[in-house]
Amino acid sequence: MTNFEYYAPTKVVFGKGTEEQVGELVCGQKCNKVLVHYGSGSVKKSGLLDRIFQSLEEEGVSYISLGGVVPNPRLSLVYEGIRLCKKEQVDFILAVGGGSVIDSAKAIGYGVANEGDVWDFYERKRAAQGCLPIGVVLTIAAAGSEMSNSSVITNENGWLKRGYGNDCCRAKFAIMDPELTMTLPKYQTASGCVDIMMHTMERYFNQEENLELTDGFSEHLIRTVMDNAKILMKEPDNYKARAEVMWAGSLSHNGLTGCGTAGGDWASHQLEHELGGMFDVAHGAGLAAVWGSWARYVLDARPDRFARFAVRVMGQTKGKDEIETALRGIEAMEEFYRSIEMPVSLSDMEIHPDEKQLHSLAEKCSHFGKRTIGCIKKLEQEDMYQIYKNAL
Amino acid sequence: MTNFEYYAPTKVVFGKGTEEQVGELVCGQKCNKVLVHYGSGSVKKSGLLDRIFQSLEEEGVSYISLGGVVPNPRLSLVYEGIRLCKKEQVDFILAVGGGSVIDSAKAIGYGVANEGDVWDFYERKRAAQGCLPIGVVLTIAAAGSEMSNSSVITNENGWLKRGYGNDCCRAKFAIMDPELTMTLPKYQTASGCVDIMMHTMERYFNQEENLELTDGFSEHLIRTVMDNAKILMKEPDNYKARAEVMWAGSLSHNGLTGCGTAGGDWASHQLEHELGGMFDVAHGAGLAAVWGSWARYVLDARPDRFARFAVRVMGQTKGKDEIETALRGIEAMEEFYRSIEMPVSLSDMEIHPDEKQLHSLAEKCSHFGKRTIGCIKKLEQEDMYQIYKNAL
Repeated sequence: MTNFEYYAPTKVVFGKGTEEQVGELVCGQKCNKVLVHYGSGSVKKSGLLDRIFQSLEEEGVSYISLGGVVPNPRLSLVYEGIRLCKKEQVDFILAVGGGSVIDSAKAIGYGVANEGDVWDFYERKRAAQGCLPIGVVLTIAAAGSEMSNSSVITNENGWLKRGYGNDCCRAKFAIMDPELTMTLPKYQTASGCVDIMMHTMERYFNQEENLELTDGFSEHLIRTVMDNAKILMKEPDNYKARAEVMWAGSLSHNGLTGCGTAGGDWASHQLEHELGGMFDVAHGAGLAAVWGSWARYVLDARPDRFARFAVRVMGQTKGKDEIETALRGIEAMEEFYRSIEMPVSLSDMEIHPDEKQLHSLAEKCSHFGKRTIGCIKKLEQEDMYQIYKNAL
Repeated sequence: MTNFEYYAPTKVVFGKGTEEQVGELVCGQKCNKVLVHYGSGSVKKSGLLDRIFQSLEEEGVSYISLGGVVPNPRLSLVYEGIRLCKKEQVDFILAVGGGSVIDSAKAIGYGVANEGDVWDFYERKRAAQGCLPIGVVLTIAAAGSEMSNSSVITNENGWLKRGYGNDCCRAKFAIMDPELTMTLPKYQTASGCVDIMMHTMERYFNQEENLELTDGFSEHLIRTVMDNAKILMKEPDNYKARAEVMWAGSLSHNGLTGCGTAGGDWASHQLEHELGGMFDVAHGAGLAAVWGSWARYVLDARPDRFARFAVRVMGQTKGKDEIETALRGIEAMEEFYRSIEMPVSLSDMEIHPDEKQLHSLAEKCSHFGKRTIGCIKKLEQEDMYQIYKNAL
């Protein structure tokens, strides 16, 4: 096992009614002016935004707001947020929403705390030296951005979707009330569950010998999300199931399931990022659609690992060899995806890229031939093209 | 499940040779003068202390040192440390050792950052308003103090052992090199493993419905420590096993296994604290010695919970009812303790308290009748006496 670092300083306040503490928590940050950042009208309609404004006012916190974040959050709104924060001398950002809103808040935070173009960080041209402090009121269990060090932004100029990770953007606090996720549409709930599972699966699949402690946590986390995803398809207002999924979402991406794993694979995520950039699909759904194709393509590089996954996570019996066991696990996972109405191919999402688009996806994903992705098997541009094609 | 907070801001730097980063990590804390706090001569003899001094010097960090911390760390040395820190204007404490050293460092940190007698906090007379920042180089996997918010100190005046928890004492960083624990005597390794298991078991046993996510983590953590404790009895220099146990030690007490569990029982810990205060036994060994007696005494209040523990952690088959299953689990745990040469009674530790001492233990543990302990079953002074007596 490899050396590792673990750093998850976000204070989590979890449970029913915890959003009422938002004013007090923001107040404790000793800031002068807050940007309340959010997405669509749903947090307005539900009354959540008004309750948050009220809580801030009760604590005498000065604030402005900026809504309009969309899934696959856009760089143009980030620029607008940076301008606004500078003009209004904002020194704290409160993200009210899911991963897209939090990621947008992080990007704005980088932009305010650093000179120059914020997109440089996402292009890996230079490293951010700081970030405005961020707080979160989470309304979607999925991305894990509330405890993670990462942020993914889409640049409309070329529809490039790029991620950037830096510990300085980790949220100071995250308020997580599972009740706030009860009104999510079924599709979004399922997509979130896949995203959560994949954050752990990306770390689980790699070329190193993991810590057994981490492997068992990961296996239990994935099983727990699967069990509760199925419950939520039938009982969307099951509080316990919402809580299991919400907490799993944070632990899946705060670093815990990566301890002693040498980082993990992440090829599925990179492949999906380009799909999201080009076709604007729900992230979790896009991951489900490419995962089987990826898994079959790289399987022979770690059949033992895929076989363990098949037995311990998917509950499969062993086949005549590791490959057969592994394939059973992949099929069982696809069966699970279908059971929660998630796609297992691009056509399941009604996306039908032509040859030119397939090549364009692979080209973008390989940064025009300048990088490989994955560690189970290092994937070149041609491999990416093949995985996209097999996922049709 | 109940609402919960989770806050574990310590930066963990884990793996071979990580102690070489100590100078750099302390430097990043931007402090003026460091107190290097340690215990017996073992860190001197091994050369670790010299390597740490060298690393600090290379980074130009000014420091003084104070050794002499003993197991069940003493208040008198804490007072000495406070005087020294004030005189030398120390603004950062580097604890080099295990739980006793870290706990002593935390107490010194409280004493420097607050007016008045530091023992007040341990007596719960008032709350600490701050603590000097603390860093850790861990040499014993056991107490989990490197990521916890707690500190336990023994006041020689009356041999009172008292714990105090406050988030402000959580370490800024913890360097964990499993190789540093390889030279520990067998007894201390085993005692540490019991302590780690018990930190999770205390949280696991309670009156609420836990998060399934947390329960599964806890069960896996305990099983992993048991598996690796057995390996270490035969192969004390097995790096992987040392790493599993060391990381389990931190996760067992940083709050993770308590999320959504309403806090846990902690009676075994309270019972052991008085034993430690009166007889100066190794903490983990003391826990092993009283646990079976405690478990049998409270079993009928949560037979379902003990039965689940028996099946999922101890691998027992189900008996004719939950009580029988539960008893199998308790016996299996005692069998495990014996297998790693841990006591399952006071006499196994060659401690033979007489009636007067038994009453005195119960009296102190109940704070002279002023408190109950435990939540599975609320234990009065008389119950405590009985559990000590049954543990003879």
